[in-house]
Amino acid sequence: MDISDKGILLVLSGPAGSGKGTIVKNILERDNMIRLSVSATTRAPRPGEIDGVHYSFVSSQKFEEMIASDEMLEHTRYCGNYYGTPREHVNKMLESGISVILEIELEGAMNIRRLCPDAVLVLLLPPDFKTLENRLRGRHTNTEDDIKNRLERAKTEVSFFDKYDYVVINEDNMYEKAATTVLNILDSERHRTSRNKSIPTDFFG
Amino acid sequence: MDISDKGILLVLSGPAGSGKGTIVKNILERDNMIRLSVSATTRAPRPGEIDGVHYSFVSSQKFEEMIASDEMLEHTRYCGNYYGTPREHVNKMLESGISVILEIELEGAMNIRRLCPDAVLVLLLPPDFKTLENRLRGRHTNTEDDIKNRLERAKTEVSFFDKYDYVVINEDNMYEKAATTVLNILDSERHRTSRNKSIPTDFFG
Repeated sequence: MDISDKGILLVLSGPAGSGKGTIVKNILERDNMIRLSVSATTRAPRPGEIDGVHYSFVSSQKFEEMIASDEMLEHTRYCGNYYGTPREHVNKMLESGISVILEIELEGAMNIRRLCPDAVLVLLLPPDFKTLENRLRGRHTNTEDDIKNRLERAKTEVSFFDKYDYVVINEDNMYEKAATTVLNILDSERHRTSRNKSIPTDFFG
Repeated sequence: MDISDKGILLVLSGPAGSGKGTIVKNILERDNMIRLSVSATTRAPRPGEIDGVHYSFVSSQKFEEMIASDEMLEHTRYCGNYYGTPREHVNKMLESGISVILEIELEGAMNIRRLCPDAVLVLLLPPDFKTLENRLRGRHTNTEDDIKNRLERAKTEVSFFDKYDYVVINEDNMYEKAATTVLNILDSERHRTSRNKSIPTDFFG
């Protein structure tokens, strides 16, 4: 008898500048039983974005068909475009024991909270608001308006703190530590009694 | 800003033969921010048991005074003797950032569940009932009656499975793996949003 071999659905959310991308990359390098879910979107690819890697780029008609046939685990509309998580691919991975990370925005995270009670929600934060601002200003591609919008949005995201299960602080130059914590959360969650309800029976089998 | 530096109160419970002692020893060797709470008891020391290390050996009168003055975090009576966890020492360690393991029986674990909602309850189990029996028979000090009693008691313990937060399987010769899981649970629990309620305010400070 061993603990559940079902994968965990883990939502990693956090403000722009929290370092989600770096953390996810490090996690995937360190554990090959964890994958990143590729979101579907109707927005146009940006330079360098690859279909099926960064997003699945689909037409609005196709996206709406997928909603209608309940193929989206969650979806949201943002700046005139659809973003969503195709259900089938995620479920297949979870069933085969692979944990799946969804790197999604606040709205998507709250949808998953509502729709998937088994999912684990992690909020990634920089050490403080000032560090967040420094990181956004350090990316010289952001306009002043962008920065202000993102800082405002970060305030909204932090106000949903209580809706998340875990908080992980991503300090400057310490992304491996933050990634280790996310890996520990995944290991820990696999051992929850609520995910292993067959054990009291199997034990005597 | 960093996550909560308060220690976690972790109850490690499980049948005789689950390997609690070995796991705890390994955990304490690997992380010096974790301590084992020393229980108080009114039973006589067994050969080799040291006062203040294995138990605090106290008189029945002293124990009852400690109950009366609310100095016991939890206590239980078992085979005519008192067993309990002195509150002050545990609280001091938790406040100073040290996590505390209570290696206690089912009744004590259920008392902690009721009295300390922040505590984390871990049930340690061997892979199956047959392995448990083999381990108990392998300890040649046990009489046949002892073994039968302990196996019956194990059934009761497993029936309280749902009351625990986590289950950890201690396979033969794999105690380090089980200890790692307990360490991961402690790290993970420190990052719960419910243990870090000041973050949404501190973040902007």
